[in-house]
Amino acid sequence: MAARLGILADGKAVDELAKEVAQAALADFSEKQTPVAWAVTNVTQGRVETFLRHGVVPTGIDSVISEVMQRTSYGCDADPVNLLLGGVKCALADFAGMHMATDLADILFGTPKPVITQANLGVLKPDAVNMAVHGHNPVLSDIIAQVAHELDQEARAAGAPAGVNLVGICCTGNEVLMRHGIPSATHSVSQELAVLTGALEAIVVDYQCIMPGLAMAAECYHTRLITIMPIVKISGATHIEFSEEKARETALKIIRQGIEAFKQRDPKKVNIPPHQSTAVAGFPTEVIVGALSQVNAEDPLKPLIDNIVNGNVQGVCLFAGCNNVRVPQDSGYIAMAKELASKNVLLLATGCGAGAFARHGLLTGDATSEYAGDGLKAVLTAVGQAAGLGGPLPLVLHMGSCVDNTRAADVAVAVANKLGVDLDRLPVVGSAPEATTEKAIAIGTWAVAAGLPTHVGVVPPVLGGPTVAKVLTEDLKSLFGGYFIVETDPVTAAEKLLGAIEERRRGLAI
Amino acid sequence: MAARLGILADGKAVDELAKEVAQAALADFSEKQTPVAWAVTNVTQGRVETFLRHGVVPTGIDSVISEVMQRTSYGCDADPVNLLLGGVKCALADFAGMHMATDLADILFGTPKPVITQANLGVLKPDAVNMAVHGHNPVLSDIIAQVAHELDQEARAAGAPAGVNLVGICCTGNEVLMRHGIPSATHSVSQELAVLTGALEAIVVDYQCIMPGLAMAAECYHTRLITIMPIVKISGATHIEFSEEKARETALKIIRQGIEAFKQRDPKKVNIPPHQSTAVAGFPTEVIVGALSQVNAEDPLKPLIDNIVNGNVQGVCLFAGCNNVRVPQDSGYIAMAKELASKNVLLLATGCGAGAFARHGLLTGDATSEYAGDGLKAVLTAVGQAAGLGGPLPLVLHMGSCVDNTRAADVAVAVANKLGVDLDRLPVVGSAPEATTEKAIAIGTWAVAAGLPTHVGVVPPVLGGPTVAKVLTEDLKSLFGGYFIVETDPVTAAEKLLGAIEERRRGLAI
Repeated sequence: MAARLGILADGKAVDELAKEVAQAALADFSEKQTPVAWAVTNVTQGRVETFLRHGVVPTGIDSVISEVMQRTSYGCDADPVNLLLGGVKCALADFAGMHMATDLADILFGTPKPVITQANLGVLKPDAVNMAVHGHNPVLSDIIAQVAHELDQEARAAGAPAGVNLVGICCTGNEVLMRHGIPSATHSVSQELAVLTGALEAIVVDYQCIMPGLAMAAECYHTRLITIMPIVKISGATHIEFSEEKARETALKIIRQGIEAFKQRDPKKVNIPPHQSTAVAGFPTEVIVGALSQVNAEDPLKPLIDNIVNGNVQGVCLFAGCNNVRVPQDSGYIAMAKELASKNVLLLATGCGAGAFARHGLLTGDATSEYAGDGLKAVLTAVGQAAGLGGPLPLVLHMGSCVDNTRAADVAVAVANKLGVDLDRLPVVGSAPEATTEKAIAIGTWAVAAGLPTHVGVVPPVLGGPTVAKVLTEDLKSLFGGYFIVETDPVTAAEKLLGAIEERRRGLAI
Repeated sequence: MAARLGILADGKAVDELAKEVAQAALADFSEKQTPVAWAVTNVTQGRVETFLRHGVVPTGIDSVISEVMQRTSYGCDADPVNLLLGGVKCALADFAGMHMATDLADILFGTPKPVITQANLGVLKPDAVNMAVHGHNPVLSDIIAQVAHELDQEARAAGAPAGVNLVGICCTGNEVLMRHGIPSATHSVSQELAVLTGALEAIVVDYQCIMPGLAMAAECYHTRLITIMPIVKISGATHIEFSEEKARETALKIIRQGIEAFKQRDPKKVNIPPHQSTAVAGFPTEVIVGALSQVNAEDPLKPLIDNIVNGNVQGVCLFAGCNNVRVPQDSGYIAMAKELASKNVLLLATGCGAGAFARHGLLTGDATSEYAGDGLKAVLTAVGQAAGLGGPLPLVLHMGSCVDNTRAADVAVAVANKLGVDLDRLPVVGSAPEATTEKAIAIGTWAVAAGLPTHVGVVPPVLGGPTVAKVLTEDLKSLFGGYFIVETDPVTAAEKLLGAIEERRRGLAI
């Protein structure tokens, strides 16, 4: 990473190098004369030139957020394209921040590796102290995952023979799933249901997608809702502030809160749904490239590119984004994934999307056998066997939390650089069939700015009349090559994405 | 200013000192380990302690804006008091930015002095090339004001015997009014009316409170709408980008656009309302203290404090904020000012409030004679005569644009320090009877955090149910001493402010 940032490693101790990287990361948040390093060192050269040409290279993550707030305040920017470019600049700052978060999390806690685990509410155990970590920041939850079993004996002493059972909710759940195999109880829109099992002793939340209604749900049970970040408190929750210096101490204190709460559990209220699915997860870029290198050690990307060219793999789709209360949970993801897989599109997933596939058994080799088209099935099977999995790779590759979307971007950038074309020519698309949060808008926008056709199934109230529609499709496409596809119906959405992939394939004459 | 920031002047050249001040200003925008300097060096020591106690001292202007965006995004902060404190921290960053903007504008363009000018649409001249500057940043408009008359001859050659007539709209208007005596055509909600006179050749806009409808209004006439800032463009406007290096050149180019447009003016469409009022404006802190020093050169604040103690002046009210389409323009300001003045409250004004008083003739000594209570009249007359005005000071003291609200805060801080009490004990209040913009919320919030009872006449949709109401009144008052008074009716609002002033007077046993 230091090399990518242009920081010379020569002879420096790791700590010294780490400090310089950390200082570069902090510097990216402040306004400066130079581009945000993470925004321009993780994309193709062609993209950098496009971004420079349109004046959308951010020179500070915080400052560009302030700038966009100024642009959109009463009586400021009123030119749709200028506003769009301001939004793109801010979205590229989001890209930088996300990539940085993934990089630093991997440095601190390790790059994820494939794990086999379980997903859905059935992962809660009637005879354990059940603790959930929820939110989007692994900084404390990873420590909790590391120390949870140290208190198994205390949990048993409190009457829970199965000890401490740590489960994940939402993207903090994805983080500990990827790095520790912690099972996933659920994701954002169904988070309260974990409390409603009556078997959850404590739910530790950091930030983002934490429903304030959790406090009311917890009040009806013995569940302790624990906030840990100074900028996220919830009325009715217990606040145990996290600090890096006392991470382990705080983690143990929080688990002990769960053990205490277990003593108040009302067995009559316990009702754990029996549902759970096996999930094979943990496919960051490094693991995908590593698996491919088992096929061709000298040129790992060649097998993927060869299969795209020969049509076994028609293209790649990243499923990202949220669940949305307007859509029966997961239905958009599942319908689209089955359709695209049957047409030989390689599927990647993050965030709530990855959670949806985990709950529905699509993160398995069995799903590959059942749903993948022949070409895709052959490729996933060959790579899976070469990688020693004894069977195909899962139908969908779980790349991480929604903070990890840049892992998928890294794959696309590597392929583009290998092919010598820019991102806006690749048969790579994105989809957020059940988008909800503000950050999904930022992520979708940088995906489009990166040149990707990007589907959104539920659109937050950001669309205006025909002018805005034109800006978000035609103008974006002419400026960046990517564009938004707004489509509620999942089957139609899949068809449109297949059309976009086909158009890109024609453009590359494959 | 360098001294206030703790920058030692010893022997440094002015340019060197200026550079260090500029670097300190830039540093305040980035996240850092230390407080935003402008937030803690311009208030009482008591306030700094209060801010530190409640954890609301910002450590970066841009970073605190980012933080508040994160707090308020989907599923983050959900504790009303924690959210309130986050908002206060952001508002104190706004205070810092405003104070900095005023300080730097005064350094670059000079501290305003009293001027006599005219206000209302009648300042447009049928036989001149009429140019309006509009927005909130004096950086270009001050240059335009400096060079406008250089092109009088070109204007005459184009058929306008009266040459170039520069007028102000909104707070950029206030800036050039205060520093150059440029007349004020109008303020925010009636900005389009200046175009509808048919006699406005060009309107140059920087940012904030620029109605996009101006473009449509301008299309119906020969008026050229000119944007100058990269972050504010408007469909249908001409964009002539401003840069500091080419300020004079750009200013001349823009004025020549107006001269060109004059040739297309349609005389049949010209309809300039005859209304205009005399306005005596330009009362920054330095001028107020300077006038008082004519009464007592050794202890300038003593006459003001003595008159507050003896009851000639009951208290001080700053009128700030916007006009709002829900209120007949200016009616809230005028009704409240007359009521408060008759009860001997010293009135200060900024922004659209100052504009309202200018249009209605309240920025005059005549208004003092007509509307001030006996005590206030005696004080304004004594100070006005001592300052050589040959009559009373105006009924309302125009302190500048809405970016200049910290000028009023400086007066309050000086009085508090002189009395040895904190701001939350002074009989000083604020009022925004016709508030509209987002920044009015920030300004009102720092006024409350500074300890001032602060009236808001029109409340943007930020109020929720009883919990929010309690937070915005009781919680704020217990934390900071200040509180919001939400009251639509101006007479009732004036009564409530008088009650707040009376309560403070009792607290000080005067």
